[in-house]
Amino acid sequence: MTEDIIIFQKKLTERLLELDLDKQPKELYEPIHYTLSLGGKRMRPILAIMAYMCSKDDWERIIDPALSIELFHNFTLIHDDIMDEAPLRRGQPTVYKKWNKDIAILSGDVLMVMAYDLLMRADYKDFKYLLRLFNQCAIEVCEGQQLDMNFEERSFVSEDEYIEMIRLKTAVLLGFSLELGGLLGGMTKEEAIHLREFGVNIGIGFQLKDDLLDVYGDAQKFGKQVGGDIIANKKTLLLIKAIELAEGKQKLDLHNLMADKEIDPEVKVKKMKAIYEDLNIEAIAEKAMNDHFEKGFVQLNTLEVSDYNIQPLRKFTEALIARDH
Amino acid sequence: MTEDIIIFQKKLTERLLELDLDKQPKELYEPIHYTLSLGGKRMRPILAIMAYMCSKDDWERIIDPALSIELFHNFTLIHDDIMDEAPLRRGQPTVYKKWNKDIAILSGDVLMVMAYDLLMRADYKDFKYLLRLFNQCAIEVCEGQQLDMNFEERSFVSEDEYIEMIRLKTAVLLGFSLELGGLLGGMTKEEAIHLREFGVNIGIGFQLKDDLLDVYGDAQKFGKQVGGDIIANKKTLLLIKAIELAEGKQKLDLHNLMADKEIDPEVKVKKMKAIYEDLNIEAIAEKAMNDHFEKGFVQLNTLEVSDYNIQPLRKFTEALIARDH
Repeated sequence: MTEDIIIFQKKLTERLLELDLDKQPKELYEPIHYTLSLGGKRMRPILAIMAYMCSKDDWERIIDPALSIELFHNFTLIHDDIMDEAPLRRGQPTVYKKWNKDIAILSGDVLMVMAYDLLMRADYKDFKYLLRLFNQCAIEVCEGQQLDMNFEERSFVSEDEYIEMIRLKTAVLLGFSLELGGLLGGMTKEEAIHLREFGVNIGIGFQLKDDLLDVYGDAQKFGKQVGGDIIANKKTLLLIKAIELAEGKQKLDLHNLMADKEIDPEVKVKKMKAIYEDLNIEAIAEKAMNDHFEKGFVQLNTLEVSDYNIQPLRKFTEALIARDH
Repeated sequence: MTEDIIIFQKKLTERLLELDLDKQPKELYEPIHYTLSLGGKRMRPILAIMAYMCSKDDWERIIDPALSIELFHNFTLIHDDIMDEAPLRRGQPTVYKKWNKDIAILSGDVLMVMAYDLLMRADYKDFKYLLRLFNQCAIEVCEGQQLDMNFEERSFVSEDEYIEMIRLKTAVLLGFSLELGGLLGGMTKEEAIHLREFGVNIGIGFQLKDDLLDVYGDAQKFGKQVGGDIIANKKTLLLIKAIELAEGKQKLDLHNLMADKEIDPEVKVKKMKAIYEDLNIEAIAEKAMNDHFEKGFVQLNTLEVSDYNIQPLRKFTEALIARDH
């Protein structure tokens, strides 16, 4: 299983680096090569391959269309990093930091066009249908990023709004990855929609898992500062539920903690975790996460695919669900 | 003739404003609606319609794919205005000024996806061929913008480099507009390539005309400051040729003029124009412009289209060539 994943990753990255990026003007193509060389798990194209393998074995045939999702994803990262003023991505300087914002905007734009170019290599009779799904997904991802930025400016965000934001910003692209792979493998459009809905729900669950790991993860395994979301007052489901449930003195403490710009970050994390514990936030967020995982698997189980054929996708997803970092 | 153009413009703008932009989050869709409402000549979709009318009359059928070019063009304007720090567009604040850079990046991205969505409405048997042409053109436009920014940092730019930059940045999109219209009207791919080459050459000529008008245009008709390019040391063909041809004291004067940050702008324009006159720059640039127009018409004349059918396109282009502002 894990061996397969490594083979996919290797092949996908090889193919990515075969793209003709030794072109002029180098200010446009070097940042693209840099971004694609930074690595990453290639989770989205692997999901597409897994979905394809529910029906067929010759997964190498769909590498290019599967990689269109990876290019699109990297395009959004390059532009998002400008907006989020993120200095690092996968431990390396972001494109706008290493070069500048203009170059990050424009090389991102080129990457997006390149994504369409790879999608075109899909061998599918109703190509416009694929393109319509891709466009829909692309627009939703942009909407999600805008909502995320809007939420930073707002003092109150509801649970439903938050779930909708992460659905758009991260989950729909996982859904599209699976749907694309399913369609290319020969599933009907209806079947592939179940696969998409599986991906969307699993994707929401993954983000909730990330939110939980940020607070309750093992610092060493997690590889980044535990409690980063708390320090930044990021309106994750955990904080949203805490704001919703806190009453009286606790409510006051919570708002004072959030407003205190002088507080030592470690103290802030510790105090916030104490509030979360009183309010049972971890269990609440875990339940929301598991509900989405379950909803996802209900969709997956509607598919009439043999246990044997769906096993790789099921195992891969379960491994992602079980990860502790 | 002019009446036809007004009908096209009206219909195109009507259809643009019918696009569903009353959506959430409004931070994304309001800037798009704003940009599309600012007006503009809609030259690119009109060129597509004119090309279509070389073969067919029912031009309303191609409004949506023709507008994909207008959306793409507006996407580039929104992103370019960030990079060029342009405060105004068509007399109104640019998107990044009216809102902010993040919103300009993201609403530009959405507009680009919307362009693909409209292109999909093209009724053409080999849709992937259209998409390939569109992608090629889109990437070239980005390359042109990057070259333009690079040239600002460089002290020397050759005539060939400049022509290549304007070919990419502005001319290929006119070429694609015509090619798309030709293909949708039923021309063969080979015929449509001639139409594209007509558009590319005409497009280069138009930019050279803009460069000339910036210096020699009638201030009142031109609607903007005459000599703006001179004041900004913009490396247009005029300045490039002057740098190439100036010798001795004149060369020194030219470089001093360019380096003088204290000089009164009107004096700078006057002195630079005197140098241009000595070096016969206006005639040189006019010849380069006319050479491209001629090259374009050679391509147009290879088409086996009746004089009657090609008349609208020919007249429209000739009117654009004859414009004095």
